[in-house]
Amino acid sequence: MSEKKRRAGAAAAGAASSSKKPRAAASYAESLRSKLRPDASILATLRSLASASASSSKSKAAAKSLADHDPSADPTSSYIVVADQDSSSVTSRINRLVLAAARSILSGRGFSFAVPSRAASNQVYLPDLDRIVLVRRESARPFANVATARKATVTARVLSLVHAVLRRGIHVTKRDLFYTDVKLFGDQSQSDAVLDDVSCMLGCTRSSLHVVASEKGVVVGRLVFADDGDRIDCTRMGVGGKAIPPNIDRVSGIESDALFILLVEKDAAFMRLAEDRFYNRFPCIILTAKGQPDVATRLFLRRLKVELKLPVLALVDSDPYGLKILSVYMCGSKNMSYDSANLTTPDIKWLGVRPSDLDKYRVPEQCRLPMTDHDIKVGKELLEEDFVKQNEGWVKELETMLRTRQKAEIQALSSFGFQYLTEVYLPLKLQQEDWI
Amino acid sequence: MSEKKRRAGAAAAGAASSSKKPRAAASYAESLRSKLRPDASILATLRSLASASASSSKSKAAAKSLADHDPSADPTSSYIVVADQDSSSVTSRINRLVLAAARSILSGRGFSFAVPSRAASNQVYLPDLDRIVLVRRESARPFANVATARKATVTARVLSLVHAVLRRGIHVTKRDLFYTDVKLFGDQSQSDAVLDDVSCMLGCTRSSLHVVASEKGVVVGRLVFADDGDRIDCTRMGVGGKAIPPNIDRVSGIESDALFILLVEKDAAFMRLAEDRFYNRFPCIILTAKGQPDVATRLFLRRLKVELKLPVLALVDSDPYGLKILSVYMCGSKNMSYDSANLTTPDIKWLGVRPSDLDKYRVPEQCRLPMTDHDIKVGKELLEEDFVKQNEGWVKELETMLRTRQKAEIQALSSFGFQYLTEVYLPLKLQQEDWI
Repeated sequence: MSEKKRRAGAAAAGAASSSKKPRAAASYAESLRSKLRPDASILATLRSLASASASSSKSKAAAKSLADHDPSADPTSSYIVVADQDSSSVTSRINRLVLAAARSILSGRGFSFAVPSRAASNQVYLPDLDRIVLVRRESARPFANVATARKATVTARVLSLVHAVLRRGIHVTKRDLFYTDVKLFGDQSQSDAVLDDVSCMLGCTRSSLHVVASEKGVVVGRLVFADDGDRIDCTRMGVGGKAIPPNIDRVSGIESDALFILLVEKDAAFMRLAEDRFYNRFPCIILTAKGQPDVATRLFLRRLKVELKLPVLALVDSDPYGLKILSVYMCGSKNMSYDSANLTTPDIKWLGVRPSDLDKYRVPEQCRLPMTDHDIKVGKELLEEDFVKQNEGWVKELETMLRTRQKAEIQALSSFGFQYLTEVYLPLKLQQEDWI
Repeated sequence: MSEKKRRAGAAAAGAASSSKKPRAAASYAESLRSKLRPDASILATLRSLASASASSSKSKAAAKSLADHDPSADPTSSYIVVADQDSSSVTSRINRLVLAAARSILSGRGFSFAVPSRAASNQVYLPDLDRIVLVRRESARPFANVATARKATVTARVLSLVHAVLRRGIHVTKRDLFYTDVKLFGDQSQSDAVLDDVSCMLGCTRSSLHVVASEKGVVVGRLVFADDGDRIDCTRMGVGGKAIPPNIDRVSGIESDALFILLVEKDAAFMRLAEDRFYNRFPCIILTAKGQPDVATRLFLRRLKVELKLPVLALVDSDPYGLKILSVYMCGSKNMSYDSANLTTPDIKWLGVRPSDLDKYRVPEQCRLPMTDHDIKVGKELLEEDFVKQNEGWVKELETMLRTRQKAEIQALSSFGFQYLTEVYLPLKLQQEDWI
């Protein structure tokens, strides 16, 4: 039925375009449609991509043993990489900390927490791991010191609250945590900061502490998973899609016959892909965080990538911000660096819309936008970033963007017809293996 | 199983609270738990609320015949109330407009559009309809006039684009529409404005034109519906919930055994309700737009209310902004006034968190926030609004807020325990029929 729908759409598109006045760009864009090979041939390309991704995941997993060895548990390691832990493991880590504090008090030495530094100067990018991590550098937070007594108390309180949340098997937000003891915390930035300290102290991710962020991502396509025990079939989620759950540890039973994951920057493009049921023509999982990626969507993408070993292709705007979004998915953001191992999805391919596409697809001049001074500044900064520098193709594209001083949104492709994205642009990209 | 889960949670809550140091507010809050009658008794209350709502919907439907009579089709009516129309009806309205233009041209008079004014001065609140509507006042937009030639061209182009979208049976965003002819439209505010004109000219809602807004709402609970033909069971949507579809006309087959709809301002409270499966204890449909209501969520709520005839209870922050959000759901916003009939859900009950709850539930002082000058200004403006004035209870609450100059978030209830909201506060509210 979806095949039928698609053909009907294509026929209508043909009719619509033939009734248009001939314009150079539009007719060239339409001529690209004839370059499309049969879907079976494009699918063969995608199948080899998927199997290559599965085998490279294996070899990379062997190379990236630092994270697997859980260095957080090893105080002699020079880096802190926090890891996902189950509730009972986190609970026993808290118990060990509290027991140590109690022993210290009983022996007359009072108590003190050893808190890892999360300062920017303490963050490094490890090329081997392709991630930002924390250098191990701890400071003491003694209770019997005027300067740190309050913070030590707050730390003890947060540990006890996290313990209670884990024992009850529920999830709460940072805001909930703050409101349980406003008098002590004063304002939310304090309980948030100590929560991050606790996460580093325990060597577990914030989601392992059952403190979750609000989700804004959605997913559709060839994916089945269980959300808190409910089986979700993402091919049957209509146009709206399934909201990505805020608590990743309630996600289980991930299954898929997709050949790739399509990561989309914006919800308008997501809606087009969902309505056209793009995933039925080219088996894929489509997800978006609707702009700046939130923690829940990043965790979800990583989980899909790790379990399904599928290639991830990204569709973002052709501007520095689009690339910045890719960098957050791939390398993490500076303020969550210690958690980067669990939030990042390395090896995302930049499918489009790339600066070189603007000329290649003859996107009309009036659909391109001039870059602002701020855009140019951000673009130049990105050229200095390690994750860009290590990919020659990305450097070239970024240089093209900065040279032409032009940017364009995914929606600019609508100038060739509302369904040009799903009917011509993406199929042709996939056919030509045009990702970098 | 959910009953079991709930009891386990309640037991854990008891244990947690007994281990706390006794504090006046907390122990009083806990004492309220003993006031709770068995669920069966609360359910009986809710059943009578639901049946009262169903019968009052009938009588109100009779009274509110203005909207039902589709005055947009009647040029002698003094108000414009646009209505939902199916694609074929919109298409034929466009055809009639274009045919009239063609005849006018052939008779040598050129062509001109009659465009209703959407100015604020042209908007009135009709108490009978409980809605903001447009006074019928049209201005001519002739093509053969230097001042209006460009706008007449844009109008013709938008009509033709909408026609193409409807013929293909797809949905597009405002941004997509803009990008199809950037050269003509110049910037998006122009195509957006003309789209609203076209909506008024044709007497149909923007969603009838298949131009949709991005969705950010989610829903869980006792609701089954079809999203683009896919059957969605919202009791099996885990903690994340189902994303509300952007295109309401693809929603069909709405079924529910819920007794009420619980409208939640924020996603943190939504998450708590979803994780605790509140809807299994008290059959309800829970939805949130995650803050300021978007068009898709408003359309969805209205659709649920109209089809299921269920009472709608709202859980918002105790601040002027919470009330402002209720007003958008109930009366529409000024800039979409002409569309208000199809976007608004009258008769929403204010369940909580109300200013009087702060003392009633002894919310600790440190969990209340002082109102800012801006808050107070907005609060005073709300006191002058018709939709507040006609509800004596709301006036009193708002006066309490302005007198005490205190506000509080839903999350403030977390100071009595993370699950106080779902285990004590809401059940007690429902038991005491404490909504206004």
